[in-house]
Amino acid sequence: MLAELDLPVVLSARDVEVTLRAARAEDLDALMALLSDDPISAARGDTGVVENRPAYARALARIEADPANTQLVVTSGDSVVGTMQLTVIPGLARAGADRLQIETVRVASGLRSSGIGAAMMRWVEEAAAPALGVALIQLTSDAARVDAHRFYERLGYAPSHLGFKLRVPRA
Amino acid sequence: MLAELDLPVVLSARDVEVTLRAARAEDLDALMALLSDDPISAARGDTGVVENRPAYARALARIEADPANTQLVVTSGDSVVGTMQLTVIPGLARAGADRLQIETVRVASGLRSSGIGAAMMRWVEEAAAPALGVALIQLTSDAARVDAHRFYERLGYAPSHLGFKLRVPRA
Repeated sequence: MLAELDLPVVLSARDVEVTLRAARAEDLDALMALLSDDPISAARGDTGVVENRPAYARALARIEADPANTQLVVTSGDSVVGTMQLTVIPGLARAGADRLQIETVRVASGLRSSGIGAAMMRWVEEAAAPALGVALIQLTSDAARVDAHRFYERLGYAPSHLGFKLRVPRA
Repeated sequence: MLAELDLPVVLSARDVEVTLRAARAEDLDALMALLSDDPISAARGDTGVVENRPAYARALARIEADPANTQLVVTSGDSVVGTMQLTVIPGLARAGADRLQIETVRVASGLRSSGIGAAMMRWVEEAAAPALGVALIQLTSDAARVDAHRFYERLGYAPSHLGFKLRVPRA
């Protein structure tokens, strides 16, 4: 279903025009760099070390093989400068509402506060959500990301929930 | 992938033995009753009115048709007394970790504090997560559910995130 989104699309951020498209296998190093460019991600193991490259490659392939998931990238010229993952989740609650979940929203550190993140989120709300027929968009944000919380609240998101996580040993 | 879970299974709660199995179409009325039995769900539109039955039926069918999703029910004798939805989400973050997301955890109001919810969550951690090879279990809980927050923290879940939601008009 996420393959039906009208992509690529040009997004006008405040300071720059960027292109949003589905990630490809050749974006992998840029995606690893975006994750390790973020201190909270790096502290969780996203350090960009080459030993983990096969695990990221498998994850990207699994995301793209699943019609309910897509990893998107934002490009400026030839550079990948942002990413986010979208997942459509069917559900019983809220009278059988489909949800659109956003994970792993990242913008390159040198381009934060340029409006790219806001343009990405506006596109999710105004283009992706209606095309997918979802009734709810949801995401969680680490409690330490105070600036991100203000950002999501400015965009109309309600911080109505607590997000609980439990790490488990991989079998 | 969720079809591979070893179900049905008997769970020993503190006060009662219950059975956990995948939901079936004939569980729909019991599932609607469990949702409307909860004031926060009811305030969001899960009031159990018959006009919404087709929407719930479609949602349950979509969940069961998706190999990355399953709606589980807990039964005691012939009665459905609990439910939860599981979703496997592949992801790049945390070095390409798959996540297991839990939504819509509900136990019948007359049976709360009987250990059923804890038995369900223990099964997720000790049986489902290893079988699915995920590295993280995650869920969000409405900020008003203070008792639920204590419950998840006792089970080892870290309230490390804020959960943001944005309702959007269905196209």
